[in-house]
Amino acid sequence: MCELLAMSANVPTDICFSFAGLMQRGGNTGPHKDGWGVTFYEGKGCRTFKDPQPSYDSEIARLVSNYPIKSKSVICHIRQANAGPVCLENTHPFTRELWGKNFTYAHNGQLANYKDVLKTNTLLAIGTTDSEQAFCWLLEQLIIKFGNTSPAPELLHTYLAKLAKRIDELGVFNLILSDGDFVFAYCSNKLHWITRRAPFGPAQLIDTDVAIDFKKETTDKDVVTVIATQPLTLDEQWHKMQAGQWQVFKQGESSFSG
Amino acid sequence: MCELLAMSANVPTDICFSFAGLMQRGGNTGPHKDGWGVTFYEGKGCRTFKDPQPSYDSEIARLVSNYPIKSKSVICHIRQANAGPVCLENTHPFTRELWGKNFTYAHNGQLANYKDVLKTNTLLAIGTTDSEQAFCWLLEQLIIKFGNTSPAPELLHTYLAKLAKRIDELGVFNLILSDGDFVFAYCSNKLHWITRRAPFGPAQLIDTDVAIDFKKETTDKDVVTVIATQPLTLDEQWHKMQAGQWQVFKQGESSFSG
Repeated sequence: MCELLAMSANVPTDICFSFAGLMQRGGNTGPHKDGWGVTFYEGKGCRTFKDPQPSYDSEIARLVSNYPIKSKSVICHIRQANAGPVCLENTHPFTRELWGKNFTYAHNGQLANYKDVLKTNTLLAIGTTDSEQAFCWLLEQLIIKFGNTSPAPELLHTYLAKLAKRIDELGVFNLILSDGDFVFAYCSNKLHWITRRAPFGPAQLIDTDVAIDFKKETTDKDVVTVIATQPLTLDEQWHKMQAGQWQVFKQGESSFSG
Repeated sequence: MCELLAMSANVPTDICFSFAGLMQRGGNTGPHKDGWGVTFYEGKGCRTFKDPQPSYDSEIARLVSNYPIKSKSVICHIRQANAGPVCLENTHPFTRELWGKNFTYAHNGQLANYKDVLKTNTLLAIGTTDSEQAFCWLLEQLIIKFGNTSPAPELLHTYLAKLAKRIDELGVFNLILSDGDFVFAYCSNKLHWITRRAPFGPAQLIDTDVAIDFKKETTDKDVVTVIATQPLTLDEQWHKMQAGQWQVFKQGESSFSG
């Protein structure tokens, strides 16, 4: 399986602390050694750092955890391969353009007998993972439903949830998806989130001996939500999502759910 | 204007030497301080490092010039903005999926009165540059012409050249484009290339005091072509492309031209 990490914030925020914990699970405290990737949005643009190497021993992961790239939406993934060999084209997150925006996607889980159900005609997968095929299908369904123009957010998110549920029927499908503005999370069997806001306190990572005092790193107006497969900190209360539940975050706040 | 750099090789080769020269032009020996980006192919996958910061003073550019990522096809760009503000979504190279492959594109030049001529319906630009709009138009024209399946390389390259000439009529359009397999170069007014093969010799960068002895870095079978706006080395003979000329490189060799 894999581990997911995402962030939604109301001010550009770096993800160094959470990433430092997650990267340890990529071959050190966890078995997810088959590559990793992270996408940072800045306005409508985004940039992705990815590596088919284990994250705990990756030169690029070290850069990402030491160099604070500030972003309001981040999507991150570390991979333990099940479908598709370990190579760059099979490394999450995947980004594609839709409606003049960058849509970025990462998946935790595994799908069975999906090839006929998730077949696509215009958007083709580049790699060989079930995950990327599901992403192509999802975007193609959005185009079929809404055409060449983005619908109202509520319509989009409700339909995304419906599509995610259909994919989920094929196996395990924990999903995070962002267009830079919202972060959408769908829980198949394992996803947690936490919203941090004033009064901020300290936190201690589970996976490595790093603690932070968020009070020193933030202002009173900051609202930052972190979504992860498993909680990343020892001493905070994370919300556990239930199977079939979905949640949209915007500017750090939970904006819409079902 | 901007500077372009590309590489095509028959063995995975790093571009650290050429990149070290080019990054100096991003705000130090050259005025191209408005961001930079580089895309490395590995198989069908690719990864892009980009930064709206000047390359000569970029933490990420330092990583790229010190950490040898080996690739057979590389596309690189440093930007001096003319159309569109300095931001991540306006930073080249741009990558989009077509026919189950990653197509990566970078442009040097400027287009006038292009908005009606290069209008697109299904592939929309995310940023506000003439360059990205031209890329979307180019891919949309390929889909209109060839549908959902990749044509034979000769057909594709001849048609690409025809499309590039049409865009070139709108201003200055030096282009490099790759699908990871081929590197296509179209010269509007400024593009040079060099093919290095055995017997390899030494070379000295123009922009910084760095020399290399390729003999020590290569085997006798290596064939590596570098394409750049301006020659990057002092002591080698670069081919100067003529206006309207185009050239396809594959596995380091010039394979098709017009």
